[in-house]
Amino acid sequence: MKVVIIGASGYSGAELASLVVKHPQLTLAGCYVSEQSLDKGKLLSDLYPEHLGLLDSPLLPLSDSAYNDIEKSADFVCLCTDHKVSVDLAPRFLSMGKKVFDLSGGYRLSSNEDYQTYYGFAHQHTELLSEAAYGLAEWNSEAIAKAQLVAVAGCYPTAALNALKPLQQAGLLAEQTIIINAVSGVTGAGRKASVATHFCEVSLAPYGLFNHRHSPEIEQHLGHKVLFTPHLGNFPRGILETIYVQLKPGVTPEQVTQAYQVLADEPLIRLLGNKMPSIKGVAKQPYVDIAWQQQGTQLIVMAAIDNLLKGAAGQALQCINLAMGIAHSTGLKG
Amino acid sequence: MKVVIIGASGYSGAELASLVVKHPQLTLAGCYVSEQSLDKGKLLSDLYPEHLGLLDSPLLPLSDSAYNDIEKSADFVCLCTDHKVSVDLAPRFLSMGKKVFDLSGGYRLSSNEDYQTYYGFAHQHTELLSEAAYGLAEWNSEAIAKAQLVAVAGCYPTAALNALKPLQQAGLLAEQTIIINAVSGVTGAGRKASVATHFCEVSLAPYGLFNHRHSPEIEQHLGHKVLFTPHLGNFPRGILETIYVQLKPGVTPEQVTQAYQVLADEPLIRLLGNKMPSIKGVAKQPYVDIAWQQQGTQLIVMAAIDNLLKGAAGQALQCINLAMGIAHSTGLKG
Amino acid sequence: MKVVIIGASGYSGAELASLVVKHPQLTLAGCYVSEQSLDKGKLLSDLYPEHLGLLDSPLLPLSDSAYNDIEKSADFVCLCTDHKVSVDLAPRFLSMGKKVFDLSGGYRLSSNEDYQTYYGFAHQHTELLSEAAYGLAEWNSEAIAKAQLVAVAGCYPTAALNALKPLQQAGLLAEQTIIINAVSGVTGAGRKASVATHFCEVSLAPYGLFNHRHSPEIEQHLGHKVLFTPHLGNFPRGILETIYVQLKPGVTPEQVTQAYQVLADEPLIRLLGNKMPSIKGVAKQPYVDIAWQQQGTQLIVMAAIDNLLKGAAGQALQCINLAMGIAHSTGLKG
Amino acid sequence: MKVVIIGASGYSGAELASLVVKHPQLTLAGCYVSEQSLDKGKLLSDLYPEHLGLLDSPLLPLSDSAYNDIEKSADFVCLCTDHKVSVDLAPRFLSMGKKVFDLSGGYRLSSNEDYQTYYGFAHQHTELLSEAAYGLAEWNSEAIAKAQLVAVAGCYPTAALNALKPLQQAGLLAEQTIIINAVSGVTGAGRKASVATHFCEVSLAPYGLFNHRHSPEIEQHLGHKVLFTPHLGNFPRGILETIYVQLKPGVTPEQVTQAYQVLADEPLIRLLGNKMPSIKGVAKQPYVDIAWQQQGTQLIVMAAIDNLLKGAAGQALQCINLAMGIAHSTGLKG
Repeated sequence: MKVVIIGASGYSGAELASLVVKHPQLTLAGCYVSEQSLDKGKLLSDLYPEHLGLLDSPLLPLSDSAYNDIEKSADFVCLCTDHKVSVDLAPRFLSMGKKVFDLSGGYRLSSNEDYQTYYGFAHQHTELLSEAAYGLAEWNSEAIAKAQLVAVAGCYPTAALNALKPLQQAGLLAEQTIIINAVSGVTGAGRKASVATHFCEVSLAPYGLFNHRHSPEIEQHLGHKVLFTPHLGNFPRGILETIYVQLKPGVTPEQVTQAYQVLADEPLIRLLGNKMPSIKGVAKQPYVDIAWQQQGTQLIVMAAIDNLLKGAAGQALQCINLAMGIAHSTGLKG
Repeated sequence: MKVVIIGASGYSGAELASLVVKHPQLTLAGCYVSEQSLDKGKLLSDLYPEHLGLLDSPLLPLSDSAYNDIEKSADFVCLCTDHKVSVDLAPRFLSMGKKVFDLSGGYRLSSNEDYQTYYGFAHQHTELLSEAAYGLAEWNSEAIAKAQLVAVAGCYPTAALNALKPLQQAGLLAEQTIIINAVSGVTGAGRKASVATHFCEVSLAPYGLFNHRHSPEIEQHLGHKVLFTPHLGNFPRGILETIYVQLKPGVTPEQVTQAYQVLADEPLIRLLGNKMPSIKGVAKQPYVDIAWQQQGTQLIVMAAIDNLLKGAAGQALQCINLAMGIAHSTGLKG
Repeated sequence: MKVVIIGASGYSGAELASLVVKHPQLTLAGCYVSEQSLDKGKLLSDLYPEHLGLLDSPLLPLSDSAYNDIEKSADFVCLCTDHKVSVDLAPRFLSMGKKVFDLSGGYRLSSNEDYQTYYGFAHQHTELLSEAAYGLAEWNSEAIAKAQLVAVAGCYPTAALNALKPLQQAGLLAEQTIIINAVSGVTGAGRKASVATHFCEVSLAPYGLFNHRHSPEIEQHLGHKVLFTPHLGNFPRGILETIYVQLKPGVTPEQVTQAYQVLADEPLIRLLGNKMPSIKGVAKQPYVDIAWQQQGTQLIVMAAIDNLLKGAAGQALQCINLAMGIAHSTGLKG
Repeated sequence: MKVVIIGASGYSGAELASLVVKHPQLTLAGCYVSEQSLDKGKLLSDLYPEHLGLLDSPLLPLSDSAYNDIEKSADFVCLCTDHKVSVDLAPRFLSMGKKVFDLSGGYRLSSNEDYQTYYGFAHQHTELLSEAAYGLAEWNSEAIAKAQLVAVAGCYPTAALNALKPLQQAGLLAEQTIIINAVSGVTGAGRKASVATHFCEVSLAPYGLFNHRHSPEIEQHLGHKVLFTPHLGNFPRGILETIYVQLKPGVTPEQVTQAYQVLADEPLIRLLGNKMPSIKGVAKQPYVDIAWQQQGTQLIVMAAIDNLLKGAAGQALQCINLAMGIAHSTGLKG
């Protein structure tokens, strides 16, 4: 099957390209950037020297003729574009009959109001919001396999939802707001030059208090109120979330352990037992690492992922695998 | 006044030495290490090349004759030793009539039971626990000025208590447990060689869940229940705490702002308004940086310090300044 | 074919273990540490959380019964041990008829005198020094394929020799000493706890001036005098060498380019043309990246490798592949 | 004396501002940015949170009225602007009778041809090139004290010249080209947003081979041919240079040691003896650290500085001190 990537010059686009070329059943049919991009015509390996010899394909402008080429040649279209751009592009590729995997947040929420509040624009294709399958691979595989449009889950939500859905499904969560303290590496802020991501400016600092767009995404797909606070940390890749949960009175450690068994056989989930997750443990790895400790009704759940793999390109590939009807970890784990 | 430092080869000891030699009214009268230390006889600047020309004094063994020298020459004795060692050493220097500033946790808690639970030893000098002044400079200056033994506040508690005592004093805190998510730089783990602090092993990971010794310290000196979760981060210096507070119903933003006015004139506290604290903002700085944002009864308070300065040597110097009756920021801020 | 790794708890041993388990034609038959090791009985994934699910085999003590097990089960024995330990262990495994791949420096030099000068011990098995094949995969493949003992090339020499042998073979080098300025990441210093590799102590600094053990290794296998100066840099993996070469009078850029054509078809060598190598470009990659610029008779050659891959475990795997008679990049490049 | 800083928003400008406000005999009379700057009107502490409470002055646009203000109020004008901008601005302030300290390269070279070759522009005020004193504080103090225009030495040249001028003056250098391998931290690349300084893009890599503008600066002020190769390293501040020198035949270690005695009493030069310089040793320090090792006629000299202090703002302050006739280390060393 043939994959094209729109927005291939960014971190998640390039990561996805590297996964596709190494995948046993996929071919990378084209890497596109906007017609205005300064990276137009460069090789992906010009931007990513580590991929020299692997990704030496040129970044093509998304011109009118490009759409024709894509229509003829591609099976799967992956959008690694900005939210607003994805919203606009998806219908065009859907109308060609392509399966579309959107790595942006453009189709993850069900409410147009949330788009206005958290994304700052009015969604122009709200009719598609209910059709899009939410691309949280371990939890929504049937819908992902069937949908024509997959809204690949966000990076922070992927860690949070895998950590919390087992508890929610088992009915162990008390009513209180769940507090999610999250730290992301700098690739999460994108490759675009800015003072905020300058080598000498990054340290560790919170941002987006009370209003980050991943808050409604987590709440909608968890079905529970959360207080989500992201931080930018001084490492390139990875997300660590420390999650403070109130359990219902009387919930035992055995019940908590039992709840997580729903994930025990998942090849890309690692339940760590009494070890702590770390950024080192997940960087460049396709997994979600999950651990927890309980004291009375207070539970601390810790989850770690690589934001570019499980939090973006890796999970997109899981969704593509599901669409092909093959094991979802194909091309990700030995 | 003459200062000697016991345990001068570690990070907080060396930091304190550098502050003392630059202080307008203090003389560094001796730097000591244990008789077994491999650093015995080395210059402090052998260990800390940045201090060449500033700290070229040899590290002296704490031998019997050393005690005699200290008895004759020192006014202030600073203990930068392990908790248990500090517990044992303090009475000896107190009986010489010295003012003792203990940077360890040996005299911070009031209950021997807590020492057994959180420090793993039975305290041999419990009679001194009630005599020791808690060295949280901005909040306990009178007691610090008068006491013969000062238990300089811990690093994490210094950030947490400065962030929370204003709210507690103003009676704004609801009953719920306050959640403190904290990240410390690696100097906080000490200079001793270990795989855990190896350059290639450090990333970002939680540790000490539910049982860190700074939990009872914060609770005792705040008078409120907290859930404190520390993490080790991949930077040399600094602590960032993101603190989740439930306010009493009806507490207004104005009341919160008003509560923090108690710190507004403190020279080593910076209230950031709507800016976010960061590790970059406090590294090698003597300050506590504090900011907050409120939504309904949910308040997020963020506090950052340099763990070696405000979290250790800087605050010890504030306490020494208080003991001398001079401005507590002397030698710390231009 | 079955591989056992002696000294598997260190960085190169663990890296090699991860390569072997993913290799299509190899089985990891055992991971051993010394009988005194504190890591005995732990899982490799306890030490390397990133390898959880991949390397969950226990670290076995190298006891007498272990030798029996190895004799029965292993085809290839890889020594990731200290130089002196490798010197002692190799003959024992050779006498069992095993193929031995030594990643230490124990069998890289031909002269016992050099061992005394640069390694500080008298070599106890000098008769094997001439039998050992030097494991520089692209340059010595026939000898490697046939030898029973392979002395896998050192990290710094791998970069230097691949950068310089093309020029030497083409006869372009003037007589002057070649200056090699090299910087290595901290995994190059090993995993053992030490203040020198403490997170807060590492920055960028030279070491081993005029006497590093890789100097005679480079000179012996290049056949030219070099001045090699290593530095420790503040990154986990990677080596960058900037090499200052005097060409014979009249050597043209075309001749230099032509000389490097000897490497043009090598799958694990990347000739960068007018791009600069970087640590980012080679970290976690199996390649040697090489670039050069010339001005008159002055040539600057730059070479970069991952010290754990091409500089250790990756090249060891190339040697194993050669011993099996399969493509030497098997298991290293997609 | 009153100091104004033009281009105060960049790294060296802000560093200089922080030095001026802490200096016992200087007042910071104004911080300026270009009229088009997006930072106009911000506080310096908005850009540099570490300086909150110290540098809360607004960044003023360099408008026509600003020139009037500067004419009335300033004694010293410091240009922390781009090379071309400095060339244009200096004459205007000189004509007001101000002492001008230019931290750019605009007035460091004597030859207009070199400006065209290495800076890419034709110098519009070549008549000033011979009047400008080269601001290498320890070596040119008399000229600096008297000159109206001081071209503060470049960062790389400051390290190189302090390391090499003692040898050159003592007549110990053989004719061969001196090889300078240099690594700079990322502040050396400026604060402007660019992909090259993105946190995730920086590693360690060479740049500017054979054509860096500091090559002619070093050669001109040393009087010896050098091959200078800079690298960008993954740390915020600091420069380390490893310098390969051929001595004249027969030069003894004693002669080399004797040559460096010319610097022995300099308060901001540290001769390290047999220790190695490191980035850690000089970051945030005002010093040049120098060490060397000799083998026959081969000498390796290592020099380290903080590029923003001794390599820019610190040395500018030394020059200002010289102009005031006070100790040149005032405000830099306790």
